[in-house]
Amino acid sequence: MRDFTQGHEWLSINTATVRKQWRLDRIVDECARRGIRAISPWRDQVAAVGLEALARQLRATGITLSGYCRGGFFPAADAAGLAAALEDNRRAVDEARALGAPCLVLVVGSLPGALEGRPLHRDIARARAEVRDGIAATLEYARTAGMPLAIEPLHPMQAAERACVNTLEQALDLCDELDPARSGALGVAVDLYHVWWDPKLAQQIARAGRDRLLAFHVCDWLTPTRDLLNDRGMMGDGVIELRKVRGWMEAAGYSGCAEVEIFSEHWWSRPGEEVLDTCVARHRTVV
Amino acid sequence: MRDFTQGHEWLSINTATVRKQWRLDRIVDECARRGIRAISPWRDQVAAVGLEALARQLRATGITLSGYCRGGFFPAADAAGLAAALEDNRRAVDEARALGAPCLVLVVGSLPGALEGRPLHRDIARARAEVRDGIAATLEYARTAGMPLAIEPLHPMQAAERACVNTLEQALDLCDELDPARSGALGVAVDLYHVWWDPKLAQQIARAGRDRLLAFHVCDWLTPTRDLLNDRGMMGDGVIELRKVRGWMEAAGYSGCAEVEIFSEHWWSRPGEEVLDTCVARHRTVV
Repeated sequence: MRDFTQGHEWLSINTATVRKQWRLDRIVDECARRGIRAISPWRDQVAAVGLEALARQLRATGITLSGYCRGGFFPAADAAGLAAALEDNRRAVDEARALGAPCLVLVVGSLPGALEGRPLHRDIARARAEVRDGIAATLEYARTAGMPLAIEPLHPMQAAERACVNTLEQALDLCDELDPARSGALGVAVDLYHVWWDPKLAQQIARAGRDRLLAFHVCDWLTPTRDLLNDRGMMGDGVIELRKVRGWMEAAGYSGCAEVEIFSEHWWSRPGEEVLDTCVARHRTVV
Repeated sequence: MRDFTQGHEWLSINTATVRKQWRLDRIVDECARRGIRAISPWRDQVAAVGLEALARQLRATGITLSGYCRGGFFPAADAAGLAAALEDNRRAVDEARALGAPCLVLVVGSLPGALEGRPLHRDIARARAEVRDGIAATLEYARTAGMPLAIEPLHPMQAAERACVNTLEQALDLCDELDPARSGALGVAVDLYHVWWDPKLAQQIARAGRDRLLAFHVCDWLTPTRDLLNDRGMMGDGVIELRKVRGWMEAAGYSGCAEVEIFSEHWWSRPGEEVLDTCVARHRTVV
């Protein structure tokens, strides 16, 4: 297992972590200043600074991507909506490619309208079928672009609104169905916030193996957790056994970054410098 | 599949649903007034009115139990804590028996101290081992008392504080390990609030079968859900496919009550009469 205590060459910052403090260009500069070598940006943040400008800044700073956030949200109420989602995912693949991302992370979506509090139907099996079909179609395009797709299982508490893929096993079943050859074109993003509770976590990480483990996200689960979306904890402040699970990841062949992704009203209210410094410190001490 | 639209003989009220409005003796009377034939009471509510008094009132009204809430909370920080939990579970078995309950529901517990916001360790595998051992020990006692134990998988968002058994599959694996003969002494309580999201739900209900399906709890999942504990919805107000899953339960052999269990600041703030009347109406229209 790699030693993280002496440096942070394997640290990546998911840029949502400081999205309320800084624009993306400032985030990149602040990461570079701290010797942070990788980020994972969100599409809206990229759009705000411009794709080409960001690509230039990445080249200038030497910062690379650990992933690109995000494609997905495949289910829709009608055929036009399904087609629009596929078109949007093709654009996301193109952007990820332009930025040299190692994978496009998929938050797959679920019941149409649920995110706005007005679900148009309750048929989660239908949503799951649309997700499978949407990934299959996007995978064809992504293969030609050479862009791996990383299915991210989301916590079951987000099953209605954000993702109807809710366990690592379910994500890997999709991978086996759509990419039985384990070509490297389809895999998973293991975000411990979403999967830490799973009694089959160790087993499924081993099942995934090097070919399927495309990304690894860390933060922590607070007790109590006060909000279903924006109350993630800083590594070390909660109950997730980060180092133990990183050991499972590495035993299965994962050798990429540990990407810090914290959606938190608390951390968004702190100075960005403090947040990044804390990420660097905790990466060494508890990840 | 049974027709619930014409009556409510299979409706049970988990008495937590109106715990903030009424004492348990009043709840029993209000249920009897509406022709509700079953309840599932909590130990603290029973203690407040007295076990013997409640037993008399149940005989007088003809109301039976669909379950008794609850045993469990097996993990502890030390041997004394583990022993105390077993002693408490034996008392719960005795109370369930005195009230003629068909099963004692187990909310198994998880990281010691987490419920109080101060987890004493993060080793969920240790908690799961203590749960297995605690159920095994309690099962020996419960068999002699003739009281079936129903393991209730809790939603993964409650995995740190309340229960480290978080899927129906995990609960059934425990049943298979501790009661391989499917004697009827050990089974599961299927609370749809906790398991509705599970992609393996239909498969695992079928696996459970009549011998293991000891209780069936209903409410609904709201979008958005604003609290991890006390924001359950009334049946029909959320996204759970209640009737579809009841069909799976009945196809697997379940023929007991649909028990309404709603922890909700909203419904606790309404008149108890309105809550019970709404439960009766929704039981007919959407369960």
